[in-house]
Amino acid sequence: MNTTPTPKVTSGALPGSRRIWQQGIVHPQLRVPMREVQLHPTAGEPPVRVYDTSGPYTDPETDIRIDHGLPRLREDWISARGDTEAYDGRTIRAEDNGLARGARLTPAFPVAHAPRRGSGGRAVTQMAYARAGIVTPEMEFVAIRENLGRRKAQEAQARDGEAFGAIIPDLITPEFVRDEVARGRAIIPANINHPEVEPMAIGRNFLVKINANIGNSAVTSSMAEEVDKMVWAIRWGADTVMDLSTGRNIHNIREWIIRNAPVPIGTVPLYQALEKVGGVAEDLSWEVFRDTLIEQAEQGVDYFTIHAGVRLHMIPMTVDRVTGIVSRGGSIMAKWCLHHHRESFLYEHFEEICDIARAYDVSFSLGDGLRPGSIADANDAAQFAELETLGDLAATAWEKDCQVMIEGPGHVPMHKIRENMDKQLRTCGEAPFYTLGPLTTDIAPGYDHITSGIGAAMIGWYGTAMLCYVTPKEHLGLPDRDDVKTGVITYKIAAHAADLAKGHPAARIRDDALSRARFEFRWEDQFNLSLDPDTARSMHDETLPNQAHKVAHFCSMCGPKFCSMRISHDIRAEAQKEGLEKMAARFREGGELYLPLEDVE
Amino acid sequence: MNTTPTPKVTSGALPGSRRIWQQGIVHPQLRVPMREVQLHPTAGEPPVRVYDTSGPYTDPETDIRIDHGLPRLREDWISARGDTEAYDGRTIRAEDNGLARGARLTPAFPVAHAPRRGSGGRAVTQMAYARAGIVTPEMEFVAIRENLGRRKAQEAQARDGEAFGAIIPDLITPEFVRDEVARGRAIIPANINHPEVEPMAIGRNFLVKINANIGNSAVTSSMAEEVDKMVWAIRWGADTVMDLSTGRNIHNIREWIIRNAPVPIGTVPLYQALEKVGGVAEDLSWEVFRDTLIEQAEQGVDYFTIHAGVRLHMIPMTVDRVTGIVSRGGSIMAKWCLHHHRESFLYEHFEEICDIARAYDVSFSLGDGLRPGSIADANDAAQFAELETLGDLAATAWEKDCQVMIEGPGHVPMHKIRENMDKQLRTCGEAPFYTLGPLTTDIAPGYDHITSGIGAAMIGWYGTAMLCYVTPKEHLGLPDRDDVKTGVITYKIAAHAADLAKGHPAARIRDDALSRARFEFRWEDQFNLSLDPDTARSMHDETLPNQAHKVAHFCSMCGPKFCSMRISHDIRAEAQKEGLEKMAARFREGGELYLPLEDVE
Repeated sequence: MNTTPTPKVTSGALPGSRRIWQQGIVHPQLRVPMREVQLHPTAGEPPVRVYDTSGPYTDPETDIRIDHGLPRLREDWISARGDTEAYDGRTIRAEDNGLARGARLTPAFPVAHAPRRGSGGRAVTQMAYARAGIVTPEMEFVAIRENLGRRKAQEAQARDGEAFGAIIPDLITPEFVRDEVARGRAIIPANINHPEVEPMAIGRNFLVKINANIGNSAVTSSMAEEVDKMVWAIRWGADTVMDLSTGRNIHNIREWIIRNAPVPIGTVPLYQALEKVGGVAEDLSWEVFRDTLIEQAEQGVDYFTIHAGVRLHMIPMTVDRVTGIVSRGGSIMAKWCLHHHRESFLYEHFEEICDIARAYDVSFSLGDGLRPGSIADANDAAQFAELETLGDLAATAWEKDCQVMIEGPGHVPMHKIRENMDKQLRTCGEAPFYTLGPLTTDIAPGYDHITSGIGAAMIGWYGTAMLCYVTPKEHLGLPDRDDVKTGVITYKIAAHAADLAKGHPAARIRDDALSRARFEFRWEDQFNLSLDPDTARSMHDETLPNQAHKVAHFCSMCGPKFCSMRISHDIRAEAQKEGLEKMAARFREGGELYLPLEDVE
Repeated sequence: MNTTPTPKVTSGALPGSRRIWQQGIVHPQLRVPMREVQLHPTAGEPPVRVYDTSGPYTDPETDIRIDHGLPRLREDWISARGDTEAYDGRTIRAEDNGLARGARLTPAFPVAHAPRRGSGGRAVTQMAYARAGIVTPEMEFVAIRENLGRRKAQEAQARDGEAFGAIIPDLITPEFVRDEVARGRAIIPANINHPEVEPMAIGRNFLVKINANIGNSAVTSSMAEEVDKMVWAIRWGADTVMDLSTGRNIHNIREWIIRNAPVPIGTVPLYQALEKVGGVAEDLSWEVFRDTLIEQAEQGVDYFTIHAGVRLHMIPMTVDRVTGIVSRGGSIMAKWCLHHHRESFLYEHFEEICDIARAYDVSFSLGDGLRPGSIADANDAAQFAELETLGDLAATAWEKDCQVMIEGPGHVPMHKIRENMDKQLRTCGEAPFYTLGPLTTDIAPGYDHITSGIGAAMIGWYGTAMLCYVTPKEHLGLPDRDDVKTGVITYKIAAHAADLAKGHPAARIRDDALSRARFEFRWEDQFNLSLDPDTARSMHDETLPNQAHKVAHFCSMCGPKFCSMRISHDIRAEAQKEGLEKMAARFREGGELYLPLEDVE
C-alpha cells in the first residue's frame, strides 16, 4: 500500500452566493439544493436563484471529508421502496486495478458499503416506477430543482423562443417528470448504489445539461487529481461527470470519485474490460465485459456508454473516411468484429446487458462508435447506419424498463447539424440526445472548446438534452484543472444560450438580472451573477484594480466621458421624471454629467 | 516632445509557413501575397495556401521599420488613374491631440506625405470605377487573393453547403469583384491616402472577414501598445482594424497605426470630434465633425463609422430598455438630439459627408447606435427603426458612388439572429452587414469572446460579411495583447465555420489537410495548419514534451492502447491491401499493434 494522501478539493461558497434548500411536497423529507446570488440593496431585487450542481462542497456548513465520502442522501428512499436487496457483491481482483501493486496501487477507498440490486431480477429503474405511475422522490427532486424562479418568470415575461418541437411547460410538476421518464423522453441517471447523487434529469423538455470528462490515462495523472477535477468541474456547473480512466487503478480511482460525487457518474466499461485482457482487443469476450458491468454497477456508476451500435457490416463504410473511426470504443469493437468476423458481442448480448442495468438502475448512453472525426466525414453512411441501430437498441432497452440516451457527434459543419438532431429524434423515439460538441471546423486545435461550443449551442437549441464538453486540450493532451474549468464554462454558455433560444421560461432571469446590474454599475452584482465570478473580477482588476472602481459609474473600456450607459441613465432618469418633451429643455440648463478627465488619469 | 521609443512589433514567419506572391493578369504588376504552409514529405501533398492578412511583417526578407512605415504599394496605381491631386492638407492643431503637451504628447510620425483627393470633387471610389466598368488593380488583387486554392477545390470536391441566397462562384474573377462592388454588395475599403493597404473585399459572396478593435482610452494604454496590438492582430488574421482611441493623442496615434497597417483601418470620427469639444456632447457641431472627417480622410482612414441612423424620434423607444443605449456613438448623438431637440447633424448633413468620403474613397460603416446591449433588448423597435434609416442612408451613399456597409448587433439570443440578417438584406439593398458578435447570452462576462463567437458563426453563415471581434475583456476592461489574440482566433473560427457552412468552395481544403495530418500522426503538420500553431504545440508539449512524441503514433489523451486512429489505420491499410474479407483472417494471425504499456510510463 502506498502513501497517497487524501485528495485536496476546492470547497467554499461562490462569491455572493449561498446554498439554500427547498422542501418537497409529495415527499416532504426532500431538501432540494439551489444557489442563491445576493444582490446589492440598491438593486431592489430579490436574490437570483440558479441551478446548483456543486453539491455540499459549496456549503460552508458541511464538513467535507473526502475519505468518508458524501452523505448518502437517497439511501432511505431506496430502502423504503422495498424492492432491493443488499448482497455480498463481486470480489475485487487484482486485474480490476490493472495488476497495480505496491507504490503503484491507488489505495482502496476507506469505507465499504454492501451493494444492492433489484430483488428477484426486478427492474428498479426510474422508468419502471414512472411506468407504474409512481412519482419517486427522485422525480419530485428533479421537478423542484428544474423550476427555480420559474413561477416568477411566468408572471414577468411572455414566452419567447423557437423550441423545434420541444414542449417545455410553464411549470415542471413531479407528474410531468414522471411522464417524461415513462415515455423515455428523459432519464434520471441514478444507480441505487450511488445514493450520494442529487437527482437530475436529462431530456429535451428540461434545462440543457452538460457533461465533463475526467480520467487518468496510461500516460499521465493520478487519483487525487481526478477527484479534484471532478469537484472542480461540478463547482463550475458540470451536471454529470464521465470517468474515462484507462491504465492501472481504474477500480479504485472510480470508487474515490463515486463516493464523493453528488452528480451522476458515467463510464465506458469497455475501457476497463480491455485493460483486463491486457489491451488486446480481440481477446475481449462477453464474459469479461459482463463481469466489468457488474463490478461497475455495484460501485454505483450511473450510466454506461455501450458501443453496441458498431456492427460488422458497417465497418467497411469507414474505410474511405478521412479520419476513420475516432471513437475509442468504436475502434476497439471494430477491431474485435473484424478479427472474429462476427457480430459484436455487445450487440448480440444487449438484452443481457439490459438485465444487468435494470437491476441497479444504470442508464445507458448508447455510444456513437462511428461518429465522424472530421468535417469531411460528417453525416456519412457509417454514422447514420449506426444511428439506426441505436434506435433499435433504445427500443430494446425500453422493453426492459431501462433508461437510455443516445450519443451523437463529433465533427459537423454548421449546415449539417440540424440533420443530426432531426434524424436522431425520428430514429430513436425521442430518447435524449447526448452530443460531443459538435466541432464546426477542424482548423483550431487548442481552441476546440470554441469550435465545438458553437456547434453545441446550436444542437442544444435544436433539441440535444446533454452536451459533452470539449476542452482546449482536445486532440492535443489531457485536460488539466484549468482546461476542465474552461471546458465547463464554455459548455454552460452553450447550454444556457440553447435554453434562451428554446424559450425556457426561467432562463432569462439571470441574463436580465446581470444586464440590470451592468446598466446600474453594480459591478459586484455583475461579477457574482456571472458564470465565473473569479475571472470577471480579476479581469476588471487588471485595468481598474482600485476598490473604488468597483462602484464607479464608468469603466476602463470607454472611460467616463464615453460611457454610453451613463448617458443612457441620464436620458432615462429624465424621461421618467418629466417626459421626453421636457427632457430636452432640462439638458439645456446644463450640469455636466461627467467626471473631469483628470480625475481618472 | 517626449522620448517615446519606436514601437516594437512581432515579426517573422509563422511556423512552417512562408509568404508567397501570385502575379496579376489584367495588371501584371500586381504581386498578391498569400501564406503557404509546407507539409511533411510523407504527406505526399502540395503546400496548403491560406489567406494572409499579416502584411510584410511575416516576410523575413522585409526590413521592418516602424518609424518609416510600410511600402506604399498602391501609390502608382492611384496616380496612374490621373484623377486625384496632391494638396497641402489641413493644418494639424493642438486639439487634434487633445491638447497633449510635453511628455504627454505622443510624437508625430516622422515621415509626412502630402494628402491626395479627387480632382474637382470627383468620386475616386472603387464603386465609381466599378460602375464605370473599370477593373482596378485593387479589384484584381482581391480576386486573386480570395481564390487561393479554389481551382484545386473545384476538381476535388462537390459543392456542399447552405448559403441562404449568397451566390459564391466557383472561381472569383476580377470582373466578378467589379460587379459586386458596382452593385454595392461588396466594398473594398481603401482610402487613396492609405496606399500601404493590401486590398481586400467585404461582401457576402466573399470569404467572411473579421475586424479587431484596438485603441487607447482616457484611462489606459499608449501609442506603442496600440501599434503593437495592430500588428499582432493581423498576424493572427484580423482583416481590418478599428482604431477606437479616445482621450489625448488621437491624431498622432492614428498616424503611427495607419502608416504601418497593411489592412484597412476604420475609425469612429465622432470620438475625436467629442474630444475637440471637451467631452461635452451638446457642444458638438457639424463644423467640428466635418473638420474631423477631413483630418482623418487625409490621414488615410479607410472606413468611418457614422451614427447617422440615430434620429430624434427613435430615442424615446429606448427608454424602457433594460440597458438603454450601449453604443458610445449612439448615446452621444442621442444626448445631442435631446439637448437641441432637433434632428441629428449627421443625418441632416449626410450628403455632405458623402461628398467628403467620395473624394478620398473612405467607405462608410453605418453605425448601429441603437443596437441592443442585452438579450432583453434584442430585435426591439428602436433597433429595427434605426435599421430602416440605415437602409435609406445606404441608398444615398450609393447615389454618391460611396461604398457602404451596415453595422449590426450586439446582444441577440440564437432564435432572433436570423431575423437580423433577413431584415438587413431586405432593408439595406444587400449592402454588406458588419456585426458585433452577436452575444447569445449575458451571463458570462470574461468569456464574451465565446458567447459572441457562437452568434458570430451563425450570423456569418446567414450572410454577414464581416464580424467585429469581441475579446474576453468585453464589459470588464481594455483588451491587452493576449486578449486581442484570443479575440482574433475566436473570430477566425467563427468566420471559417461560416465559410464552411456556406459551402465556400475552398474553405474545406485546410480542414481536410489538417484532418489528414491528424489521422496520419503528422503532429508538426497539425500544428502548422492550425490557426494558432504556437498554442497547439505548447499544449501538446504540456503532456508530451519529448520531441520523439511529435512523431509518436498516439498521444496523451488515450495512450497507445486506446488510440482509435491507430486502430483505424490498421483497418484501412488492410482493407486497401486485401479487401475486407481477407482482413479478418489477417488480424487473427496476430502481431500486436501496440507499444507495451511500460514503454510510455
